[in-house]
Formats: sequence, C-alpha cells, structure tokens
Amino acid sequence: MAFMSDTRTNSGVDNISTFRKMFHWEVPGERFISIMTAGNLATTQSLISQLEERTKAPGERKPSILAAPTMFQVANIIGATLRETIVARALTGDEASLPNAPNFKASVILGGQIKGMEPRLYLIYPEGNFIEASPETPFFQIGETKYGRPILVRGFESQMSFADITKLLMVSFDSTLKANLSVGLPLDLMLYRNDEFAAFHERRITADDPYFESISEGWSEALRNAFHSLPNYELDA
Amino acid sequence: MAFMSDTRTNSGVDNISTFRKMFHWEVPGERFISIMTAGNLATTQSLISQLEERTKAPGERKPSILAAPTMFQVANIIGATLRETIVARALTGDEASLPNAPNFKASVILGGQIKGMEPRLYLIYPEGNFIEASPETPFFQIGETKYGRPILVRGFESQMSFADITKLLMVSFDSTLKANLSVGLPLDLMLYRNDEFAAFHERRITADDPYFESISEGWSEALRNAFHSLPNYELDA
Repeated sequence: MAFMSDTRTNSGVDNISTFRKMFHWEVPGERFISIMTAGNLATTQSLISQLEERTKAPGERKPSILAAPTMFQVANIIGATLRETIVARALTGDEASLPNAPNFKASVILGGQIKGMEPRLYLIYPEGNFIEASPETPFFQIGETKYGRPILVRGFESQMSFADITKLLMVSFDSTLKANLSVGLPLDLMLYRNDEFAAFHERRITADDPYFESISEGWSEALRNAFHSLPNYELDA
Repeated sequence: MAFMSDTRTNSGVDNISTFRKMFHWEVPGERFISIMTAGNLATTQSLISQLEERTKAPGERKPSILAAPTMFQVANIIGATLRETIVARALTGDEASLPNAPNFKASVILGGQIKGMEPRLYLIYPEGNFIEASPETPFFQIGETKYGRPILVRGFESQMSFADITKLLMVSFDSTLKANLSVGLPLDLMLYRNDEFAAFHERRITADDPYFESISEGWSEALRNAFHSLPNYELDA
C-alpha cells in the first residue's frame, strides 16, 4: 500500500498553514494502521487526538483502534468518532442556513493490516459510513481530487512497483499543485509492504527535493512530447 | 480563437440528455459572435432565446447583440440578460435555504470580433459581470473544469496552430469524459480566424469519430510512455 498527502490547510487564501494530514500507528509484528485526513482541520485534529488518547487508555468505554480485532472494526471506530466530532460542532437552525455557514465535515482514508488477515483500504465519509477498495477500485482520493485524477485513472496498473507508484503519485500531486492553491508542498509519502506491520519507507518531500523537481520539470516536457506524438488534426477533413 | 463544448445535460444520473451548448451569430464582413454556456439548462436556453429574439426586433428597448457597437457592449448585454434570467427564477426565503434547493445559475464564454476592432474573449459570471482574456490568461473554461485543466495549463502555447489547439482541446475533454459522467459526447468544435467574421471550421465530434478515437486511445499509450520516460524513484535514497 502507498499513501501520499499534502500538508496545506487554509481558511481563505490569506490564512494558509502547514499541518500534517498523514498519521500512523504500529504494533510491531501485530498491526499497522495508517490514516490520511481531508476537510476541516479542527475536526481532523480532534479525531486524531481522540484516537490517540484511547490507545493509551485501554480500559476506556470506547475501544482503541489498537485493540479492535479487525480492520473493519477499526474503520467502524474511526467512522463513529468522526461522525460524533462533526455532529457535536454542527450548526443548527438559522445559523446553519447562513450562506457562509462553516462546514465542519472531514473524510478519511484508512489503510492497514492486522496479523493473520489481509491488508485493507477504506474511504470513510463524514457520516461515519465507509467503503472498501477492491480490485476494480484499487485506490481512493479525498480532498481536492479532480485535477490529479486523470493521470491516476490512466496511469495506474495493478502490478506496479513501489517506485512506479511513488512516481505516479508525484505526477498526480504535481498536476494538482500547479492548478490549485489549496494544495501545497511539502508532501508526505509512506509505503507499506504486506505482513511487515511497519512502514518500510517514509519521506517528507519538500520544495527543494531533487527527485520531485525532476518529476515536476520532466513531466511538462514529457507531456509535450506525448502530445506531439499523437496524430495531427486535419482541418480539411 | 477556438471553441469546444460538450453536449450533455443532466438532472441526476438517471436523467441525461443531449443539448447544444455552443451558439453563434455571423454578420458577413461585419461581426462574429460565439457563445458557450454552462449551468442550468432552462436558464441558458432562455438566455439564448432572448438574445436570438432581439436580433430579429431591432427596434426593441433592449439592444441586440448584433447592434452593439463593441464586444464589450455585447458582453454587457449578455451579462445583464443572464443576471435577469437567474434573478427572475431565484428562490427566496425558506425555499432558498432548503438543502436541495435548485440552482438556476449559469455562466457563459463569449468570443467574437466586430469589424475594425480586435477579437475579444470574455468569461461572464452568473452575476452578470465578466472578465476578459489576456496574454497571461489566454483561455477560459466553464462547467466541469478541473479534470481537463492540467493538460491545458501544461500543453497550451500562445503560438499553437489551429490543428494543435484542436488536438489539445480533444485531449483535455477526453480526460474529463473519462472521469465524469456529467460531461458527454458528442463535442462541438468551432474555429475562428481573425478578420473573417465567420467560423472557418465547424464540426460535431461523435463517439465514432475516427480522429477522436485515435486521440483517446493514443493518449493512454502516450501518457504511459511519458510516465516511463521520467526518472525512477530510488526507494533507498
């Protein structure tokens, strides 16, 4: 499994900050759980704090994601916590119908594996329900998804190496970075190999990362070449 | 100037129809006006009908786009008519704050030329105001813009031939078609050469168009080659 997230949050173009959106928990030899978040920052920070606190209080009423017996149960816990967090803040009545009413929604991509079971990948909605990836839908996106989607749709192949998947993720993020101010460097990358119960590769990709620079610059040139390799339109046809 | 639009309208995925979104008026040797629309179909059809009616009643209170002295005035007329049409239908009070309140908004891309003046290209907002293209912002998109934007941003060059621009528009639309059901074939293409006051090339591109097929299929292959031409990510770096 491969995970990539940006780090930009904004509340208007004049209020931009850098916050981590990728988090993970490891129990050596037993489980690996990774989360990426999109949406309202107060909601996602609260979600992560609640999940984190419970991992340190095993006797609590609500189960910890480190104690849940399956990834499905982990998704359930995260979904329920996410929904509670959003509902607790939701505006009601007149306040909610104001044209500029703030939106406290957030969504989550959850990936992980528990010993003895297959790795799992879920997309969790603000309502707390979720869907699971499958061979037909092998990846999920959350947040500002559209600009980067065409290259994922066309470039993804199920037998790709981790190096190729990383390259594809960088090309996809670069397309979004070039089009939309709400997505910004640095990027976080994490790679997970089945049955290792720990990330085997983690990296923060900053603006001066030489590999990312070579992808970002090389892609423009490569796209132009790809474009010119296509047959020309005949105006007289 | 080059114009391309799709023809899909939908009111939900189970109610999809084909309607033209590109319209133009020609006064031989004197003016050429082209419009593309996005948004609520009832609004855009009403807009086009009103503009069309006034071209046949020159004595009307409101000026015709064929009588306006400049493209700026044409944009003003279209903006005012668009805004009136939307405001006339807008819901008010409780109705407007319902979660599923219908949205009657629409926007317009206007391009054209009047004899003795430069060609002009405008993006007209639902509020009736508008912006003009410039060397720094040489193209506009309306509607479902995000999927097709990265290739326009990277592929567009100011000295492109009409054949290359057509190819670029097809690649961009194809990326959107592959990602989003709300955009659909056929596409309409129109090309305008300065000081001719008539479109010199018009074409409806249907699903069985051999050139579009060759672009759509060739682009997947060309993208894959472009992708593999980039340097590989080193996992041990």
